[in-house]
Amino acid sequence: MRADIEELARRRGFLWQAYEIYGGTAGFYDYGPLGARLKRQLESEWRLFYSLEGFFEIESPTIAPVDVFRASGHLNCFSDLAVVCSKCNAVFRVDDGITAGGKCPECGGELEAAGEFNLMFQTRIGVPKGEEGAKRGEGYLRPETAQGMFVNFQRLLRFNRGKLPFGVMQLGRAYRNEISPRQSLIRLREFTMAEVEVFVDPEEKDSHPGFDTVKDRMLRLNPADGEECETSVGDAVRRGTIANEYLGYHMARVKEFLERAGIPSDRLRFRQHRKDEMAHYAHDCWDAEFLSRRYGWMEIVGIADRGDYDLAAHATYSKEDMGVSGVIPHVIEPSYGLDRIIYAIMECAFTEEHVGKETRRVLRLTPALAPVKAAVFPLLNREELKQKAKSVFQSLKRRVVYVDYDESGSIGRRYRRQDEIGTPYCVTIDYQTLEDDTVTIRSRDTMEQDRVRIEDLPAAILAGIGFHGV
Amino acid sequence: MRADIEELARRRGFLWQAYEIYGGTAGFYDYGPLGARLKRQLESEWRLFYSLEGFFEIESPTIAPVDVFRASGHLNCFSDLAVVCSKCNAVFRVDDGITAGGKCPECGGELEAAGEFNLMFQTRIGVPKGEEGAKRGEGYLRPETAQGMFVNFQRLLRFNRGKLPFGVMQLGRAYRNEISPRQSLIRLREFTMAEVEVFVDPEEKDSHPGFDTVKDRMLRLNPADGEECETSVGDAVRRGTIANEYLGYHMARVKEFLERAGIPSDRLRFRQHRKDEMAHYAHDCWDAEFLSRRYGWMEIVGIADRGDYDLAAHATYSKEDMGVSGVIPHVIEPSYGLDRIIYAIMECAFTEEHVGKETRRVLRLTPALAPVKAAVFPLLNREELKQKAKSVFQSLKRRVVYVDYDESGSIGRRYRRQDEIGTPYCVTIDYQTLEDDTVTIRSRDTMEQDRVRIEDLPAAILAGIGFHGV
Repeated sequence: MRADIEELARRRGFLWQAYEIYGGTAGFYDYGPLGARLKRQLESEWRLFYSLEGFFEIESPTIAPVDVFRASGHLNCFSDLAVVCSKCNAVFRVDDGITAGGKCPECGGELEAAGEFNLMFQTRIGVPKGEEGAKRGEGYLRPETAQGMFVNFQRLLRFNRGKLPFGVMQLGRAYRNEISPRQSLIRLREFTMAEVEVFVDPEEKDSHPGFDTVKDRMLRLNPADGEECETSVGDAVRRGTIANEYLGYHMARVKEFLERAGIPSDRLRFRQHRKDEMAHYAHDCWDAEFLSRRYGWMEIVGIADRGDYDLAAHATYSKEDMGVSGVIPHVIEPSYGLDRIIYAIMECAFTEEHVGKETRRVLRLTPALAPVKAAVFPLLNREELKQKAKSVFQSLKRRVVYVDYDESGSIGRRYRRQDEIGTPYCVTIDYQTLEDDTVTIRSRDTMEQDRVRIEDLPAAILAGIGFHGV
Repeated sequence: MRADIEELARRRGFLWQAYEIYGGTAGFYDYGPLGARLKRQLESEWRLFYSLEGFFEIESPTIAPVDVFRASGHLNCFSDLAVVCSKCNAVFRVDDGITAGGKCPECGGELEAAGEFNLMFQTRIGVPKGEEGAKRGEGYLRPETAQGMFVNFQRLLRFNRGKLPFGVMQLGRAYRNEISPRQSLIRLREFTMAEVEVFVDPEEKDSHPGFDTVKDRMLRLNPADGEECETSVGDAVRRGTIANEYLGYHMARVKEFLERAGIPSDRLRFRQHRKDEMAHYAHDCWDAEFLSRRYGWMEIVGIADRGDYDLAAHATYSKEDMGVSGVIPHVIEPSYGLDRIIYAIMECAFTEEHVGKETRRVLRLTPALAPVKAAVFPLLNREELKQKAKSVFQSLKRRVVYVDYDESGSIGRRYRRQDEIGTPYCVTIDYQTLEDDTVTIRSRDTMEQDRVRIEDLPAAILAGIGFHGV
């Protein structure tokens, strides 16, 4: 995370290194009060976005028995190579610059091969009793939410009255026991995914019913073989750069969601996986990448064509039918990494401006995601103003919910406090308020102040924040 | 779960036994599309309820290093006694009727003591390297969300500008590796908790600022020593039955939430823990119990006075200061088990009525929790009616989101389908609609039909469902 954003995120209660009182545990983060609220609202917007598409959400457990991952391939294919330092015992993932025989980046000792390391967290379900019992209880924390949808395919199909295509979504925790987790939200061991599985007849992948609505949208594409280019979705599918309409449609929708969340188009591209980097289940995969000022291009969403890989595998291992009138559906999967998206949103929102001699830090969050929608201030530290301000605060809170009250420090300082957490509106109570029940409302983005009647305040704020719910 | 509710819950996509294609795994459940939506809305209402109280939410990881649970006491005190059958190897929790030396309830073999069994799921964080590394990586899945708030106490205090009291909440998965998980949602190994920790100066536990607003509310109390009685919160605190105003205030608020969620007052009581059944961290604890037709009284919320137990323990183990000007705050904790509450809601909502010769099954969910808010039907299977109905459906969906469209079967059958999933409104498009743009809207509860203009439809439905958000 950029040092200045990181400092702000920690100080103001967006993000904290987890278990710091015990020295911290790499790969785990806490969302503080403001971060959790930002995340909650992003999740609500995501649900709304795909609910309006007609997709339905399910919620499955995060622990699954070994059978699920034997079928999905994660037990055998979901691993990284590790090396260990012969001197300080530090363990690293084999990566660019880190190989067996090389030098330890921490102490300079010699690195030795430490074999393959499966990235799933293992656990045991129930009381082990003898070898057979122990084997029966072998369980793992899910590395993706997707499998919970695949194993329920027949039930979901029935829920949709036996008809294809349909879309299912799931939002929740997933886990990868990374060998070398990075700082901040970029490579976590426990993270939040928001995944959509669209089940479609393979014969119909080339004709998405909504394709016309997206075909003229422009995407920046970085194909596995070919030059990076700016092209319309329609052209990219026609030329075969994007394999089919379903994939193209969902790439366009992913871009739409990310832009609405506050990531501008010029910091987004879609990069196609090369054959040798594709996950074991993917036929084709495009990463939506965000251009970070600190990390360069980084994946924030993967849009994969998983083909019939998962359903066919579960059919084989469970011996249950996973077909629809003899055809195994294909799966198109937009898979969002919400923690990284939150990082991207914060990096894009963070601005520093020079106002006179001062630096004004503003978090220009899209108002629907701002953790505090409005702050109420008495202009001066006088009892009559404070009393009125508190009553305005209480009544505004009943409608807008996420409202702050602040009476400490100069009015300028209170504006700055709200600016740096992205509060779209500040409401000030002054002596005129006591006479005519009007207040000033100041916009974070324009810094302009309007005078409005107290009774019109909730509506004015709700209209400005595109409010979709808590 | 009652057999009839269970059948409905499974068939209509509320709840499914998890991993059924692999034979099922005891203690794990899936929320299907309707169940997940009901749960999501319950969660939103819960957040709103405590956000309006001024409490803030955080989100911490579900995996924690062993240090956390060494301090919290879960490593040593969070265990059940197990017995194993010498014949069939089945393992049981020592409970009423099950003891070492007794008979196996499954095969009649002799039960032998199998020792204490810690109920936390264990896992390993990172790559183990040597004994020291393995010890460092010892981790557990949290058995409650509370610890994530305690270890962050100093940060949360700073967020609240150093002042007591304040409340923090967390909603998320928790895990208990139960020896004998029961069917359905009653004793799960992975479940959802919604917990509030109120940090208060021990000197002020007896004067809650909002106590006057709840003091006349009636509670049914079952104290550890004394008769079950119906009494006002104020009287119970005055007599010392409830230890302090903070505890009394939060018991009243818990009851308010449960009633709003659809559990009637006459199926709720508060039972105080006897000294010998209290959790290791509790000074005093009351369970909000629901009277189930199938299971009798069962705990759905615990309201504990945890005293300074947790903060003092973390201070000792981490050597960090957990005080506020030399005083360690006490903690009052309402802790909701959301899965059981969902079971209770469904049991209370489920009704069967005899209408003529037919049985009408209705899920009388409070409209804010109903997974589908309205269903749109063409009266007859005619193209012109279907077209109009689809357009009404599409425009209604943009405002109300959770709307269904159904054109199959008789109109009576379509009503019944919606009744049994609790849809508050059904909208029918008929020939008059084509003439004057009005539709009939039928209420689930009264079965009365009104004629309204299409343009007034979203507002009429939103008003009826007390809509607080997606």
